Amino acid sequence: MIRLSDIDSRPPKHADKDDYKDLTKEYTDRLGALQDKLYAQKKYGVLVIFQGMDASGKDGAVKNVFEECQPSGLRVTSFKRPTEEEFAHDFLWRVHQHAPPKGMIHIFNRSHYEDVLIQRVHKWVDEKTVDSRFDAINAFESLLQTHANTVVFKFYMHISYEQQAIELQERLDSRSKNWKHNEGDWKEREYWSEYMRCYEDAFNRSVLPWTIVPVDERWYRDYVISKTIVEKLEQLGLDYPPFQKVKKP
Amino acid sequence: MIRLSDIDSRPPKHADKDDYKDLTKEYTDRLGALQDKLYAQKKYGVLVIFQGMDASGKDGAVKNVFEECQPSGLRVTSFKRPTEEEFAHDFLWRVHQHAPPKGMIHIFNRSHYEDVLIQRVHKWVDEKTVDSRFDAINAFESLLQTHANTVVFKFYMHISYEQQAIELQERLDSRSKNWKHNEGDWKEREYWSEYMRCYEDAFNRSVLPWTIVPVDERWYRDYVISKTIVEKLEQLGLDYPPFQKVKKP
Repeated sequence: MIRLSDIDSRPPKHADKDDYKDLTKEYTDRLGALQDKLYAQKKYGVLVIFQGMDASGKDGAVKNVFEECQPSGLRVTSFKRPTEEEFAHDFLWRVHQHAPPKGMIHIFNRSHYEDVLIQRVHKWVDEKTVDSRFDAINAFESLLQTHANTVVFKFYMHISYEQQAIELQERLDSRSKNWKHNEGDWKEREYWSEYMRCYEDAFNRSVLPWTIVPVDERWYRDYVISKTIVEKLEQLGLDYPPFQKVKKP
Repeated sequence: MIRLSDIDSRPPKHADKDDYKDLTKEYTDRLGALQDKLYAQKKYGVLVIFQGMDASGKDGAVKNVFEECQPSGLRVTSFKRPTEEEFAHDFLWRVHQHAPPKGMIHIFNRSHYEDVLIQRVHKWVDEKTVDSRFDAINAFESLLQTHANTVVFKFYMHISYEQQAIELQERLDSRSKNWKHNEGDWKEREYWSEYMRCYEDAFNRSVLPWTIVPVDERWYRDYVISKTIVEKLEQLGLDYPPFQKVKKP
């Protein structure tokens, strides 16, 4: 049972930034090596879902955690407001198309969880629909895991209400970040406690586990995510395929 | 008029590897900064096409040249043997779907040029069809450039016949490269001079220019490609969008 109010959004006290940065560098290097084998072996696919409030550092995590991965084996999809065509299908239709084939790491910046978050917070769907969406989500993730050897990571970017204000304000003040500013983000912020409730419900009702990532400090965020991915992938026994029994003709 | 036999596939004499690696690092850093603006501004798209014989270092170039770019703004598509569905359409159909939207860098590992290369070398298509394919390719690339503000780069990975043998042999000898081994690559190699003739014809008949990249030394390859992309993108005046006239409510 996950309760966000019990979880600190800041790093542990006395955690040393430089030490953690060194550790993160080790993990991202190891991830690069793991990805090369994943790509060569084509036995497993990897799906990495990032969910979190606006300005919780999803893009930054994508850039930092995967920096030693080869772009050919990595694909990022950002899910925004559905198009008219997407709306005309079931809510998993657009997501399914971007599921990773074996050998690939696919990253979702937001995901099918929006359909039980923003839509639920604003009461665009009734609770009965929400229930059946959770059933569908669990069946879908299980499908990927069982029938496509997909390793699913789900990261919740745990930012504090106060830190979000700082990050959103920076988008107003900084020239290089101003393009990310969206007045709607400040409006969504008014629904904070309702979002937290719906997120907690999502964590507790989904079968495949979530990782709650304290993101108030970006260096600690990168550490937790890279460590989580590496430790799991290292259990898979990824390796290059055996030598092919062929010779130069 | 490009003649491959006139162009060295090795770096200039006396070129110092470490010096070039330092220069490449500067270019890839600048490319990272340019991409951030490209992504924010959403005025231009970038299409980077890599073509070359097997083992000419296309994947390595993708990994090294774009290492400071954020994965969210980068997408790599490898074009292999067309699927049945793709074959049932015109030859540009599958390619067009992966054209970059404004703000994105899309990389093609092989491309629509295969339809005037491998298919022509093996005489799977007649010369009249080849002629009309060149017309279609020129019209298509012009469409992207004119109607979607796409900056198109086309890199030919210029490897020598001798160096290719070394690279292919390494795939037989090295555990971490053996999975790339494909007996068909050695067979295609027998058509080398015919490939060179068709490549030259493609360079000379396509309207948007090609860059011939000497790739026998990988460090020189990375230098030429990163320099070419950066110098062109720096002419575009990429910048973050102006401050939005909005305030925190």
